Amino acid sequence: MALHMSPEGLLPKGSKFTSITGDGMKIGVIGTGIVGRSHAAKLALLGHEVVMGTRNVETTLGVHERDMMGNPPLKEWLQGHPMVKLESFHEAALHGELIINATRGEHTLEALRNSGERNLEGKVIIDISNPLDFSEGALPSLLVANTDSLGEEIQRAFPNAKVVKTLNTINARLQVDPDALMSGDHDVFLSGNDAGAKQRVTEILRSYGWKNVVDLGDISTARGAEMMLPMWVRLMGVLQTPLFNFKIVR
Amino acid sequence: MALHMSPEGLLPKGSKFTSITGDGMKIGVIGTGIVGRSHAAKLALLGHEVVMGTRNVETTLGVHERDMMGNPPLKEWLQGHPMVKLESFHEAALHGELIINATRGEHTLEALRNSGERNLEGKVIIDISNPLDFSEGALPSLLVANTDSLGEEIQRAFPNAKVVKTLNTINARLQVDPDALMSGDHDVFLSGNDAGAKQRVTEILRSYGWKNVVDLGDISTARGAEMMLPMWVRLMGVLQTPLFNFKIVR
Repeated sequence: MALHMSPEGLLPKGSKFTSITGDGMKIGVIGTGIVGRSHAAKLALLGHEVVMGTRNVETTLGVHERDMMGNPPLKEWLQGHPMVKLESFHEAALHGELIINATRGEHTLEALRNSGERNLEGKVIIDISNPLDFSEGALPSLLVANTDSLGEEIQRAFPNAKVVKTLNTINARLQVDPDALMSGDHDVFLSGNDAGAKQRVTEILRSYGWKNVVDLGDISTARGAEMMLPMWVRLMGVLQTPLFNFKIVR
Repeated sequence: MALHMSPEGLLPKGSKFTSITGDGMKIGVIGTGIVGRSHAAKLALLGHEVVMGTRNVETTLGVHERDMMGNPPLKEWLQGHPMVKLESFHEAALHGELIINATRGEHTLEALRNSGERNLEGKVIIDISNPLDFSEGALPSLLVANTDSLGEEIQRAFPNAKVVKTLNTINARLQVDPDALMSGDHDVFLSGNDAGAKQRVTEILRSYGWKNVVDLGDISTARGAEMMLPMWVRLMGVLQTPLFNFKIVR
């Protein structure tokens, strides 16, 4: 299949700004990289009110070059997605009834602290981050693993938020468009302590097109999902594409 | 599908001691648990000369009770598999042109040292072990992870052996009988430094019925395969069966 790394590729023609579900939520997306953009675009398409959060709005809008992955500067991307607003971390978190953490793992805790603990209180945080450590070269290890996970660190740092780890084992484009691969016949995992929060996240995943949502258990099961990443990265090298996913055959 | 935890379930009726391939090898299987038994039975069925190695033959044959998993004592198992011989670690390794490490990860390095470094020299070691640490409860963490792996530890301890990590992400019964699940439409991974050794191991995997053998790269990629185990263990809890496997959908 063709390789579309930019999130724009996932929007069906002619339906760009049409609400599908109608029951829009206020959603704060923390992070403006490819993961944040993919979710912001998809959620706006689905009729939600999306505010993306960044560390410094002026700095982010002052970037005029494509990033290392070839993604356009955010200013240009926003012009193509006028339903998505850009604000500070704090304003995005304040706006959201539900928060999506789409930051790089090494910056996650700082970004969420900058979002303001009070702005996260009682809210569902969908945590997509991976604690990847690239300091030793191109093949990353994990900054936290085995007896702890980034998902658990976030839950401990914000005990009144409801952290649900999900989608971190999947490429950004496929996260919001599972049907692009084998008609969606592959799996997404879910970890979290709060059953109601996991139910809400499952509904969002279903609105993205996910059919197979596997609830692994409490937030400590995020260890298993995060520890898939070393395999994921090596498989990307072998397959020469990030457009693959795991399916549990049983 | 029906749940057959005992390795006997994998032998097709009437073909128990018939060589299929004809080109028998001398194989030493280090370890007498369910993994060792599964491979010993299958390899004997395929016409290889199999010697299983144990720490102390008398002690092993003196066990008269089933183990915690309900497997029969080895003495009884051997009566049902007269083509498989039981010897010491040392004798099994000496016998094998090719060695299979089917020990528990916590005992692997000691068992291989007891097998004798000279008996491993220049030989392919198929390493199926997982460095599981159950000391903190029912859900294991890993004894080594992230920046190292048991596969790499073995390769460093025996630099003249050719370690190939494989099958550790799969239940023992399915390891030697992939067709028992979805006609074998799922994947097995391979890690190792020596291309020739990986080719030989691939041939053995194909003789077991494996169609999808994914070569991840050098032995350091065993980290990815071993770090799948925390997910595997949690999935077994969710699915309530060990008879599942990962398939890479692309």
